[in-house]
Amino acid sequence: MKDLNDLFGALLKDVLHAERQAVRVLPGLVRRVGDSALKEALEAHHRETVTQAERLERIFALLGRIPRAETCEAIQGLVDEARAVTEDAGDADTRDAGVLAAAQAIEHYEIARYGTLAAWAEELGMDEAAGLLRLTLDEEKRADALLSGIARQRINRKARAA
Amino acid sequence: MKDLNDLFGALLKDVLHAERQAVRVLPGLVRRVGDSALKEALEAHHRETVTQAERLERIFALLGRIPRAETCEAIQGLVDEARAVTEDAGDADTRDAGVLAAAQAIEHYEIARYGTLAAWAEELGMDEAAGLLRLTLDEEKRADALLSGIARQRINRKARAA
Repeated sequence: MKDLNDLFGALLKDVLHAERQAVRVLPGLVRRVGDSALKEALEAHHRETVTQAERLERIFALLGRIPRAETCEAIQGLVDEARAVTEDAGDADTRDAGVLAAAQAIEHYEIARYGTLAAWAEELGMDEAAGLLRLTLDEEKRADALLSGIARQRINRKARAA
Repeated sequence: MKDLNDLFGALLKDVLHAERQAVRVLPGLVRRVGDSALKEALEAHHRETVTQAERLERIFALLGRIPRAETCEAIQGLVDEARAVTEDAGDADTRDAGVLAAAQAIEHYEIARYGTLAAWAEELGMDEAAGLLRLTLDEEKRADALLSGIARQRINRKARAA
């Protein structure tokens, strides 16, 4: 990797892998969630995630490249943690709290990566790509804030009393 | 895991592992960084990280437990990505941009986890633990914002011109 262009291309592949994993894994988490507000938030975020993966593919097209993902070990670890909590939790309320926390860890990974990608795209003068990346970044931040609210108002209380 | 107490204990072990990894890995990243402002920010954050690990040990003590870490696959993946970028980068400016991005991904993992831990501690009525966790959460957010500023003002520009 010899310059910012190369870094940008490499991180784009990593984040494409992360989004594709999220698209694949979220429905399984949604199925195991009990709380209706959490279920709805994760379902809505699954639909957003499909669009976010398509935006990444659009950026590959802008660069004249094939959208090829590269394994992202970090998201793999986060997804494994999310799966483990759905299996280890002794009851539905505890499981909901664990799933919500795991989803927020994934959100924050994406917030970090999209923040970096957007800043790099701007530095490289790639205005359309930067705009698409900022759109996703804002969605991720809103999804994270929504989950924080659901945790505070519903999930954590129920899990404490579990 | 049968309730919020168990989730809290399990996540505490995971984050202790993450902080201990960060304490161990940061000096190596600092050594390979060229930009003086980035070097200084990462050195300062290394000192903060030592304190953050001690705060976690204090929380284990408050719970009457031995501070035992449990492997956190996500941080392992993030650390591996950080190491890879220091090895693959063709020159110092590109390496700095990659290291900075990797450090921000680690920050965001910690922001997600400390946000969850602090909310759970509050829900469980563990006021002293919650206070310690909020202290660290604020430090992580400040460290992330500082790195964003250094990226925008210095690092990304130099890497573009690399």
